[in-house]
Amino acid sequence: MKLGMIGLGRMGGNMSRRLMSAGHEMIVYSATAKTREAFANETGAFASKSIEEMAAKLESPRLVWMMVPAAVVDQTLINLSRVMQSGDVIVDGGNSYYVDDIRRGKELKEHGIHYVDCGTSGGVWGLERGYCLMIGGEDDVVKRLDPVFAALAPGVDSAPRLPGRDKIEGTAESGYLHCGSNGAGHFVKMAHNGIEYGIMAAYAEGFNILRHANVGRRPQTEDAETTPLRNPEEYQYDLNLSDIAEVWRRGSVISSWLLDLTATALLSDPDLSGFSGRVSDSGEGRWTIKAAIDEAVPVPVLAAALYQRFSSRGEAEFAEKLMSAMRYEFGGHLEKPVKPS
Amino acid sequence: MKLGMIGLGRMGGNMSRRLMSAGHEMIVYSATAKTREAFANETGAFASKSIEEMAAKLESPRLVWMMVPAAVVDQTLINLSRVMQSGDVIVDGGNSYYVDDIRRGKELKEHGIHYVDCGTSGGVWGLERGYCLMIGGEDDVVKRLDPVFAALAPGVDSAPRLPGRDKIEGTAESGYLHCGSNGAGHFVKMAHNGIEYGIMAAYAEGFNILRHANVGRRPQTEDAETTPLRNPEEYQYDLNLSDIAEVWRRGSVISSWLLDLTATALLSDPDLSGFSGRVSDSGEGRWTIKAAIDEAVPVPVLAAALYQRFSSRGEAEFAEKLMSAMRYEFGGHLEKPVKPS
Amino acid sequence: MKLGMIGLGRMGGNMSRRLMSAGHEMIVYSATAKTREAFANETGAFASKSIEEMAAKLESPRLVWMMVPAAVVDQTLINLSRVMQSGDVIVDGGNSYYVDDIRRGKELKEHGIHYVDCGTSGGVWGLERGYCLMIGGEDDVVKRLDPVFAALAPGVDSAPRLPGRDKIEGTAESGYLHCGSNGAGHFVKMAHNGIEYGIMAAYAEGFNILRHANVGRRPQTEDAETTPLRNPEEYQYDLNLSDIAEVWRRGSVISSWLLDLTATALLSDPDLSGFSGRVSDSGEGRWTIKAAIDEAVPVPVLAAALYQRFSSRGEAEFAEKLMSAMRYEFGGHLEKPVKPS
Amino acid sequence: MKLGMIGLGRMGGNMSRRLMSAGHEMIVYSATAKTREAFANETGAFASKSIEEMAAKLESPRLVWMMVPAAVVDQTLINLSRVMQSGDVIVDGGNSYYVDDIRRGKELKEHGIHYVDCGTSGGVWGLERGYCLMIGGEDDVVKRLDPVFAALAPGVDSAPRLPGRDKIEGTAESGYLHCGSNGAGHFVKMAHNGIEYGIMAAYAEGFNILRHANVGRRPQTEDAETTPLRNPEEYQYDLNLSDIAEVWRRGSVISSWLLDLTATALLSDPDLSGFSGRVSDSGEGRWTIKAAIDEAVPVPVLAAALYQRFSSRGEAEFAEKLMSAMRYEFGGHLEKPVKPS
Repeated sequence: MKLGMIGLGRMGGNMSRRLMSAGHEMIVYSATAKTREAFANETGAFASKSIEEMAAKLESPRLVWMMVPAAVVDQTLINLSRVMQSGDVIVDGGNSYYVDDIRRGKELKEHGIHYVDCGTSGGVWGLERGYCLMIGGEDDVVKRLDPVFAALAPGVDSAPRLPGRDKIEGTAESGYLHCGSNGAGHFVKMAHNGIEYGIMAAYAEGFNILRHANVGRRPQTEDAETTPLRNPEEYQYDLNLSDIAEVWRRGSVISSWLLDLTATALLSDPDLSGFSGRVSDSGEGRWTIKAAIDEAVPVPVLAAALYQRFSSRGEAEFAEKLMSAMRYEFGGHLEKPVKPS
Repeated sequence: MKLGMIGLGRMGGNMSRRLMSAGHEMIVYSATAKTREAFANETGAFASKSIEEMAAKLESPRLVWMMVPAAVVDQTLINLSRVMQSGDVIVDGGNSYYVDDIRRGKELKEHGIHYVDCGTSGGVWGLERGYCLMIGGEDDVVKRLDPVFAALAPGVDSAPRLPGRDKIEGTAESGYLHCGSNGAGHFVKMAHNGIEYGIMAAYAEGFNILRHANVGRRPQTEDAETTPLRNPEEYQYDLNLSDIAEVWRRGSVISSWLLDLTATALLSDPDLSGFSGRVSDSGEGRWTIKAAIDEAVPVPVLAAALYQRFSSRGEAEFAEKLMSAMRYEFGGHLEKPVKPS
Repeated sequence: MKLGMIGLGRMGGNMSRRLMSAGHEMIVYSATAKTREAFANETGAFASKSIEEMAAKLESPRLVWMMVPAAVVDQTLINLSRVMQSGDVIVDGGNSYYVDDIRRGKELKEHGIHYVDCGTSGGVWGLERGYCLMIGGEDDVVKRLDPVFAALAPGVDSAPRLPGRDKIEGTAESGYLHCGSNGAGHFVKMAHNGIEYGIMAAYAEGFNILRHANVGRRPQTEDAETTPLRNPEEYQYDLNLSDIAEVWRRGSVISSWLLDLTATALLSDPDLSGFSGRVSDSGEGRWTIKAAIDEAVPVPVLAAALYQRFSSRGEAEFAEKLMSAMRYEFGGHLEKPVKPS
Repeated sequence: MKLGMIGLGRMGGNMSRRLMSAGHEMIVYSATAKTREAFANETGAFASKSIEEMAAKLESPRLVWMMVPAAVVDQTLINLSRVMQSGDVIVDGGNSYYVDDIRRGKELKEHGIHYVDCGTSGGVWGLERGYCLMIGGEDDVVKRLDPVFAALAPGVDSAPRLPGRDKIEGTAESGYLHCGSNGAGHFVKMAHNGIEYGIMAAYAEGFNILRHANVGRRPQTEDAETTPLRNPEEYQYDLNLSDIAEVWRRGSVISSWLLDLTATALLSDPDLSGFSGRVSDSGEGRWTIKAAIDEAVPVPVLAAALYQRFSSRGEAEFAEKLMSAMRYEFGGHLEKPVKPS
């Protein structure tokens, strides 16, 4: 198929490359002239100088895929809706809030334009591994785009088939799925990322326990503000975290792709000294908790994982000061000075 | 009664003063000569130069109350057991682990010495307000000490009587309670402190939300690593935390003594700039979680409160670095630099 | 002052009574004729048969206080706005979402009507204790209503004055506070309830630990699916929870009004056998977590407290089944049958 | 090598089969005559009638591997120590607490017997996939057993090699690892299971959110005890959980072995109606939290995952009743009746 791609960053660029490898014809656009020209030179894609030019280059019904930051999606849609026509299709493959998809789908429908929301997982590895796609939109529109989704997705061979699964129809085994009407794709992607936060935190906490398995060897502070370790002889292990991550990759219940990445990170830098530990969060984790609240679904693990990220960026500071202030008021407890590092 | 007090710190000193005000005769001891002499000069108590002298000054059956750091209780007991005799009583009023009480009670029983564990709440305010006492030990021994407990406790008038409570016998309304055999006193005190951590954290988190009610006024960062605030118009409040703490003290469901202390702290320093936010934990919070695990009782709130204290002291650092490292591995996400303060 | 009250339920009825005791003249309305007539007979208030009649009975500028369920506030406002005039004031004293207040304030302003949001804490005890009031609205309008707020609030004598507080101006010490513009009152009330959930959960978890302090006496199940208790001798206490709640009311760090209520409940029914344990949540707890997420403020304790309520109503069921299903898949673990009760 | 295996359950039986496939000679023992005879008939292993006979059949230095429930390890060791001799080796491959390993290692050392603790992951799949082994013990003893560990482990080909890993020596890539002195193996296995609980809970919570994505379609209850859903139009999705689990297996960031098992479970029973949701916990999860507390490492996610299991078995009941009781006391709130199912 012939399709347009708006956005040539880490995601949009690699997705265009993967689509071209599968024989699709790409008309690409990036707001930065240098980016789009470099991409055209490298790949042979046609670099449009404007959204208008992109629209002119495509054939009815047009298909344009957006891979832009969440903050500029609405403006891009306004620009697009001026040059698109009834019957055309716009896909938002970025990290939009599914609530926005519902609204956007309705607004574009008034212009006869079809909107498809597509949650995309795979990160920088997607070019090679393929992208896991979670799709929301109208049945016939999504069906029409099948060759595009199939080219982006990893394909059935990328994981062992489950026993009995071959009797089930559908595309899930190929790594892409039409989840429901508009918003369903990003809803599923949202929950996916919420789970991702939880799994990452589970590994992170576990490795932190392993790293501190030698606390019994450290000199014990003796003052009224410090609880002495009762059994230092039980915490005498200097564990090799890099080896442990590696050994868990084979045969253990907790083997996973995130563990592979953990092992990779610990292999090159066992102390992770290249990181300060300020962990960003990109929206989906927050929306997951909000959705769970609306549904009255308890999510203690997913929420705790989100709060760790907030805390890692210093957002608990005032709460912590208030706890110290209360301790001072009732017990005269002074804070201990910061440990010299 | 005539009794000995070992330890003249913030707690032991004030408790001795309160006991003397009630007419008890105190034989006191502190390892620091200056401390015990100053106390004797101020109060007229007899300052013993040694544990031996204290024992000699008391009459059989002797009563000695220990108010020393948890770390030195066992050594003090060894010293005491050399000079105490069958029928004598030792009270540990500090923050001991109830598991140690069970052992100590058994060991002292072999020498005919009675052991009483007494969890003591009240902090620096106890001299004036009285101390809440949670007691573990043998029935007749605890009964014999009733005048001492009654003098330390706040008394029935310190809180409004509950309807129907007057029909119930016992000392609970006076602010002291024989909870059970050895360990029961510190077990109840342990759970008390576990609850205290939870309540303190609840206030701290709530005030942190109030303090950030103006985030909609702050300039929004716009990059792929930051989730934009969707509704800045909903976060435009500059709230007066000191006034809010004060107003909640009257008529609200969450009025409490810890709220009184919070209001006091915010009154003198609304930004709590005198605190860094490194919150200590003194053992009972940890033991509470361990006991809950043994009992299979879920304590998500109490545990979360404990973990906040650990995190406030930087103990999550390696976990945070690992999450950043994973994000870098799968998405090429670089950490954002620390905000300039 | 002369004012109207819409809603004569547990809250609106008692608030009207308290206002009349202070000399205010009440024009009341309830959709149920029987309710408003009974109230008029008891108190001498004027019972309006309709909102129109209420409006006619009041004098310009009118003041109407709404004390109705959150779900009918908007419809009540539509009805009111038809009969109110420029310069009149409407107070919403119920549990509205502060985001709605912002919208309602703007909409009513277009009609020249002033809107005041007032978070009200005190429950069924407010008639006697007074109500803690958290107020949002325009400065001069809130000032004009001062006699009404002062009559509802508990007054300065209801709690001991903090040292130095007398030098601070304002109404906080009287138990009511103008927190900011529209929404600020309910924002502060929202955080108040969020904190309330946290404190309630802290007590509930702590008492659950105390209740299970005798697990060492129970016969231990011995099978591969059950972890044996290693130290049953440490869990041999049959604690009297009613006495413990009572003793903590005096002198302890965790004394509070919620503890008073806990003691009351345990006094009359130590096993709480009259309750099934399905805990409702009324909105503010959910909004608190959502606001914290928008502000990026970590609230592990407040969120855990909310999730406990969800779980208590069976909302974790599918998640629990999925964990059992995974255990079955990797280890062949069958679920243990439900304990016979 | 020739070695003994005590215990022929799900784990011990399959491990013996795997060892025999690799050419090792097995002398097996199970307390149940039928079990050991059936196993001997099937596999050709020698079934000992007693521990004594097993010892006699093995050659010095003997090697015996125990694969028995944690509760009977100590008794088995007492029996074994009577028939083993100086220089012999005992491996505990079960789910022992690492603290016991430290003690056992010391006790056996007094008899000249070497003790090795080996955490084993792999469950019922290990026969085919191989077992991930985490080993604690003396260097030379562990080295001597290398052929046994190598036969049990999955081998290097069972996962893709990480770039640069080939330059690192050691056995981690083969799926077994000598982690340190006695206890280190089970310490690492303990943290492994702690992480496992966290990951399982993350998936479980996420799928629970997906399952409730249609709450907007359900009739809304309207009463003072229920928060109305503000935006039912945002929760209209009937999602196919089985397909979603399948699609995430390919290309997504959260692909893992536990997700494969989740997909398998949802494939055969999308409603998981075969499970009641009472989730067992087998000790390691609890010990993980206790170790983290000793180390002062915050583990909110791992702890929340453990507490969910406790709650799933009704252990929060008294806490829930107490929250309902407080709500009744302050607000007159009655519990809502249980939903008819």
